[in-house]
Amino acid sequence: MQNVKLNHLAIVVDDLEAALRFWRESLGLVQAGPLQSVPAENVDIAFLALGDAHIELIQPTTSAGGVAKYLAKRGPGLHHLCLEVADLDAKLNELSSAGYELINETPRERDGRRYAFIHPKSAGGVLLELYERM
Amino acid sequence: MQNVKLNHLAIVVDDLEAALRFWRESLGLVQAGPLQSVPAENVDIAFLALGDAHIELIQPTTSAGGVAKYLAKRGPGLHHLCLEVADLDAKLNELSSAGYELINETPRERDGRRYAFIHPKSAGGVLLELYERM
Repeated sequence: MQNVKLNHLAIVVDDLEAALRFWRESLGLVQAGPLQSVPAENVDIAFLALGDAHIELIQPTTSAGGVAKYLAKRGPGLHHLCLEVADLDAKLNELSSAGYELINETPRERDGRRYAFIHPKSAGGVLLELYERM
Repeated sequence: MQNVKLNHLAIVVDDLEAALRFWRESLGLVQAGPLQSVPAENVDIAFLALGDAHIELIQPTTSAGGVAKYLAKRGPGLHHLCLEVADLDAKLNELSSAGYELINETPRERDGRRYAFIHPKSAGGVLLELYERM
């Protein structure tokens, strides 16, 4: 039954270097890979290992885009939760049939992964990403 | 080096039964133990297994207390992150010495666990709980 696992937990930050000082230097988490720029989404990101999952730190690089708007409205903090499922299409169909609202009816694909977001109003206020390893 | 692991991720909900329908029935997470009332904190809680960590669903039962205030102000959603550390006192001393603000200078103890919260303004907007298994 338990075919759902944590993939990553995303945190919006306004200063990636300061955030890394806290999570990496002071708290002792290990950074996984280098900083990455994602120009298509106007963000820089960094990953920290958390068991076999990750904490993703996201810093908007412009005032455009959803993450920048989130930061402006709510301030830095926990942003979204990404869970890995075995069969993304089946899970999305199930959720949709049960009346839950999906942000992405059709999964998006990038860098060999397929993912879709569930609307926070259908997930108890949590922006939930579902992810399938390809 | 990697001596930090996820213990739980807490989500504030306004309806524990509806939240369980989503996370357990629709998403397929497995509930860990029965619902628990924590009258001292005016909340009911339920845990869902997430690998060897948990998602904690928290519903305020009165309008008193920090969780109820959080829910009234920010709405339901991701609330706090709890990481397990090997030596809580050492970690708190380190963080305090580095200038980070602790909510609990002295760890609290309950049900055989010791824990302390770090102030969100010192953890990039994240309400962070550090936990030590006793």
